[in-house]
Amino acid sequence: MTPPATTANPSDHPWRSIVITLFPELFPGPLAASVVGQALENGTWTLDTVAIRDHGLGRHRAVDDTPAGGGAGMVMRADVLGAAIDDARALYPANSSDLPLLIMSPRGEPLTQKMVEDLSKGPGAILLAGRFEGIDERIIKGRNAKEVSIGDYVLSGGELAAYVLIDACVRLRPGVLGATESLAHESFEDGLLEYPQYTRPRTWEGHDIPDILLSGDHAKIAKWRDDKARELTKHRRPDLLTDKSTTK
Amino acid sequence: MTPPATTANPSDHPWRSIVITLFPELFPGPLAASVVGQALENGTWTLDTVAIRDHGLGRHRAVDDTPAGGGAGMVMRADVLGAAIDDARALYPANSSDLPLLIMSPRGEPLTQKMVEDLSKGPGAILLAGRFEGIDERIIKGRNAKEVSIGDYVLSGGELAAYVLIDACVRLRPGVLGATESLAHESFEDGLLEYPQYTRPRTWEGHDIPDILLSGDHAKIAKWRDDKARELTKHRRPDLLTDKSTTK
Repeated sequence: MTPPATTANPSDHPWRSIVITLFPELFPGPLAASVVGQALENGTWTLDTVAIRDHGLGRHRAVDDTPAGGGAGMVMRADVLGAAIDDARALYPANSSDLPLLIMSPRGEPLTQKMVEDLSKGPGAILLAGRFEGIDERIIKGRNAKEVSIGDYVLSGGELAAYVLIDACVRLRPGVLGATESLAHESFEDGLLEYPQYTRPRTWEGHDIPDILLSGDHAKIAKWRDDKARELTKHRRPDLLTDKSTTK
Repeated sequence: MTPPATTANPSDHPWRSIVITLFPELFPGPLAASVVGQALENGTWTLDTVAIRDHGLGRHRAVDDTPAGGGAGMVMRADVLGAAIDDARALYPANSSDLPLLIMSPRGEPLTQKMVEDLSKGPGAILLAGRFEGIDERIIKGRNAKEVSIGDYVLSGGELAAYVLIDACVRLRPGVLGATESLAHESFEDGLLEYPQYTRPRTWEGHDIPDILLSGDHAKIAKWRDDKARELTKHRRPDLLTDKSTTK
């Protein structure tokens, strides 16, 4: 008999996600739907929430206070967030110290498919979702957190950003996507945007599927697709091509 | 008496969102929570869904077919999507032809706070959320659609992207955010990431709030914050500074 492999396999253990939020009732929410929801149900990944309010202070369970130095808005307190993060780390004592702590924030490092791939191969993530306001800067070093941004826009809360990060990671876990939801030839896979796709009917409102796609000549079709992907990327996202050329 | 102003005011009419999706049950979902949810309830914005499946073909209500030219995955049919889009446009005949049609796709133009601001000042948007697969390219010209991407990663569906775009727009509508959720000094407002924030307690786990923020010297505090915002942006997102310098 073959002895059990000693190398960790990503499919051996569930991908753990823990969301620290003022709105725990928003989870799993949309993450319970479709293939990602099926994977949650079958244990491919797990989802826990920590309610920041449970660590609030005083009769009103305050979680924030006015900014030091003045200014509009409120700032979430380091002591409250620190306690919530410690609570999250206590959920899975065996491996939770390996879970990266990510703060969803427009100030963060932009989320990319490469970062998603790396995270999805890891043990999971603890995600801190703020709302409306800043968080006390000291929590970042104090709890070894990394700020991550899903894009250059501002949301009313980090919960939507947490959905995005979790969904993007979970769909890459082994067995989550079926054959019809193939990962092949999707955008960013080869540093390019995806080529145009067509399907039946052959003519729709006077517009035909390009002849070459119906030619049966696989080499020509592959070249056409590659050309189209490059054209589109050059036109719409020249930055992706520049990044590619400098890393090659 | 002053005659009624003839200039359209964004607060005069609700901001209309219509989501075309295979999963209408995911809406409003998280968009019913918090300030954005309150604004939905009080009519600041409206949300409708069009179920793509309702326009599916045959006994199985098929919405997709295999890609012309071969390859993995499935492609959503132009005839099905066209009918769903026409259905969406028929919901508000008076002004729906003004609603931009946005296809949530990683191939799209990256969503930025500037685009969010422009959209939020407009009448609303029709958002098409795909799932797992491409859509027939002909729909883009055939229905004058624009592809929009919330970031350089791939999701299991466009529904999460639709949440993000709607939330980002609605929070900018007049009256949605209260004083404590101020728009002042947030990231991207002046082309910079937000400066670090601190609040009570003054000392947390041995880390102090920077003295300058407790000095009461407002000019020095403003300069410190601006310096910190520039430092952070230069370190983390030099691309934002480059964009700024070339557009000035």
